[in-house]
Amino acid sequence: MDQRIHNHAEILVDWSARVDAGDDVVLSVGEGAHDLGVAVARRLGERDANMLATYDSDELDRAYLRAHSGAFESDPEFEVALYEHADVVLSLRGTRNTTEQADVSDETQRRHAQASRKIRELRMDTDWVSTVHPTRAMAQQAGMSFEAYTDFVYDAILRDWESLAEEMSRLKTILDEGSEVRVLKEHDLTDLTLSIENRTAVNSAASVAYDSHNLPSGEVFTAPRDTAGQVVFDIPMTIRGKRVRDAHLAFKDGVVVDWEATEGEDVLRTIIETDEGSRRLGELGIGMNRGIDRVTDQILFDEKLGGTVHMALGRSYDANLPESEDGNDSAVHTDLITDMRAEGTRMEVDGETIQRDGVFRWEDEFKG
Amino acid sequence: MDQRIHNHAEILVDWSARVDAGDDVVLSVGEGAHDLGVAVARRLGERDANMLATYDSDELDRAYLRAHSGAFESDPEFEVALYEHADVVLSLRGTRNTTEQADVSDETQRRHAQASRKIRELRMDTDWVSTVHPTRAMAQQAGMSFEAYTDFVYDAILRDWESLAEEMSRLKTILDEGSEVRVLKEHDLTDLTLSIENRTAVNSAASVAYDSHNLPSGEVFTAPRDTAGQVVFDIPMTIRGKRVRDAHLAFKDGVVVDWEATEGEDVLRTIIETDEGSRRLGELGIGMNRGIDRVTDQILFDEKLGGTVHMALGRSYDANLPESEDGNDSAVHTDLITDMRAEGTRMEVDGETIQRDGVFRWEDEFKG
Repeated sequence: MDQRIHNHAEILVDWSARVDAGDDVVLSVGEGAHDLGVAVARRLGERDANMLATYDSDELDRAYLRAHSGAFESDPEFEVALYEHADVVLSLRGTRNTTEQADVSDETQRRHAQASRKIRELRMDTDWVSTVHPTRAMAQQAGMSFEAYTDFVYDAILRDWESLAEEMSRLKTILDEGSEVRVLKEHDLTDLTLSIENRTAVNSAASVAYDSHNLPSGEVFTAPRDTAGQVVFDIPMTIRGKRVRDAHLAFKDGVVVDWEATEGEDVLRTIIETDEGSRRLGELGIGMNRGIDRVTDQILFDEKLGGTVHMALGRSYDANLPESEDGNDSAVHTDLITDMRAEGTRMEVDGETIQRDGVFRWEDEFKG
Repeated sequence: MDQRIHNHAEILVDWSARVDAGDDVVLSVGEGAHDLGVAVARRLGERDANMLATYDSDELDRAYLRAHSGAFESDPEFEVALYEHADVVLSLRGTRNTTEQADVSDETQRRHAQASRKIRELRMDTDWVSTVHPTRAMAQQAGMSFEAYTDFVYDAILRDWESLAEEMSRLKTILDEGSEVRVLKEHDLTDLTLSIENRTAVNSAASVAYDSHNLPSGEVFTAPRDTAGQVVFDIPMTIRGKRVRDAHLAFKDGVVVDWEATEGEDVLRTIIETDEGSRRLGELGIGMNRGIDRVTDQILFDEKLGGTVHMALGRSYDANLPESEDGNDSAVHTDLITDMRAEGTRMEVDGETIQRDGVFRWEDEFKG
């Protein structure tokens, strides 16, 4: 077995989930993630944790969902009981066909998601971590060979997380103390101002100890209070199965007042018009994972890409808000990404430049 | 997908487990049983049952067990909670290497089994059914090609269970009303008398409705009170990884007083000398599945082979006993099988011949 799979398992169990002896760990094994499952099982054994393996199969789920009448029971008791008593949930994603659920109707998926709301919340109440094992299907989605994709995934995951966490804490401090972020580009229409006063940034260092539940991670994110100006999201993405390119959004008083895209304007419209909250930004995230060197059209990786910034239309995260505030509420949370590495880009906090051309102030290559 | 996999799933869900809408069903998917998992998921969807899939992987278990210190926590809370609330447990076995756990020490396996006693009991309190999906590893163990083995498995499983249940109920009636079974062969030393007075036979028709939890099944079994005489078990078997051939046991007052075997006498000795109960018979079973046409050294199939009789040293099943009796207690339950199809064999109940040369009294070929 590739030694990197064992290294991945160790980071997941030790750094990300902080598993202790006696912890009740649900290990969700994707149908293409068997090898990582074996490596994680070994690490859980070494930690003297308790393990229960569940099977996360798109093919089983598709067969079940298509056959069901659609009258799903809300939060079945046995599943509630399991997650109520679990300390940790490790999700090893690894699909063998990224479009396996293409013929399950949206309505069925929506009903099933609604019927398992409490179970989702219970899982989120554990020290959960979601990670990914490279599969051929995911390489294909990224337009890469399997070998190159595998290298890509491990470059993103096998980081020195402790030192990245330290670097990210610098940015967190700047955002926590600052009250306004400005994102500027000379070569397109981007000039956006986001108020972040009284918000708390999350240092997303791929560990529950940092309130960060994805491996890889490597971003610092916060929740904007208010937004004005315009921004072009020039990293192409697939959203709800459709390609979206160069989405251009204009904001006034925090609300989207105008939008266009060179491709996928219809899906953009559907998202923006979902509800009140989908017209506002719920998240401003700053990618800091330098192990990710390219766009693969997989949001888990793309939004962490060092030298990019992403903003999400819709729901904000509680971790960014003071206790007294509810933040932006919406049924959606859709990330859009803009590249800050081109010449003439700048990120300012309270008028001070903290990143230029994708390079942070504290990095050697920074040009003041 | 082979249509037989769907037929298998339907028999499992409908006939064997009698799954109803709203049942909480734990679906344990063996690492080589994915396809059957998909078919069962579909059937559970059609039944509007609730499904939670667990992953039964010898490789994960091996990695976990070998890495663990051995101080296993007794019955971890989250797993107890799951099975306490489950209505049905469907185990789809399908290993990819029948010797995967060969390098996990007996001591570790024993400790782990001891630490999950309550979980095992909770699973047994559900409407559980254990079945098997054909794999190349199992074909290899049987010394067969994969195609031939697959045909063999479906011949055993895809029966008209309703009519077999009816046929088996005849034998059950005879055993329930009888008080003594005699098994005789002209051509070896077999002449054994088993008292079965006041015992209840189980019509093991591969359905929870018959207190029968294996698919395939197809046997009628009871618990002997007393045994005298001798018997040769001429169907070769692998027990605890060792070949056992022609085990010859002599009983007096219900207890084994002498034994030998042409091969594997040491493992026979270990079993017989385990405890008080392992010197006595806990089960007399009569194979009635005519879909099984050969010995494959897999007890799930071999003991159901139509025209064979098996007897187990050790623990008896409660289902065979009156409420007031405890039956034979032991840490072991080891089945041994004798072929009744050779000329000159006979099974009598209270002096009346009910099977001759492997043919039952009610079958056309019976020679009275």
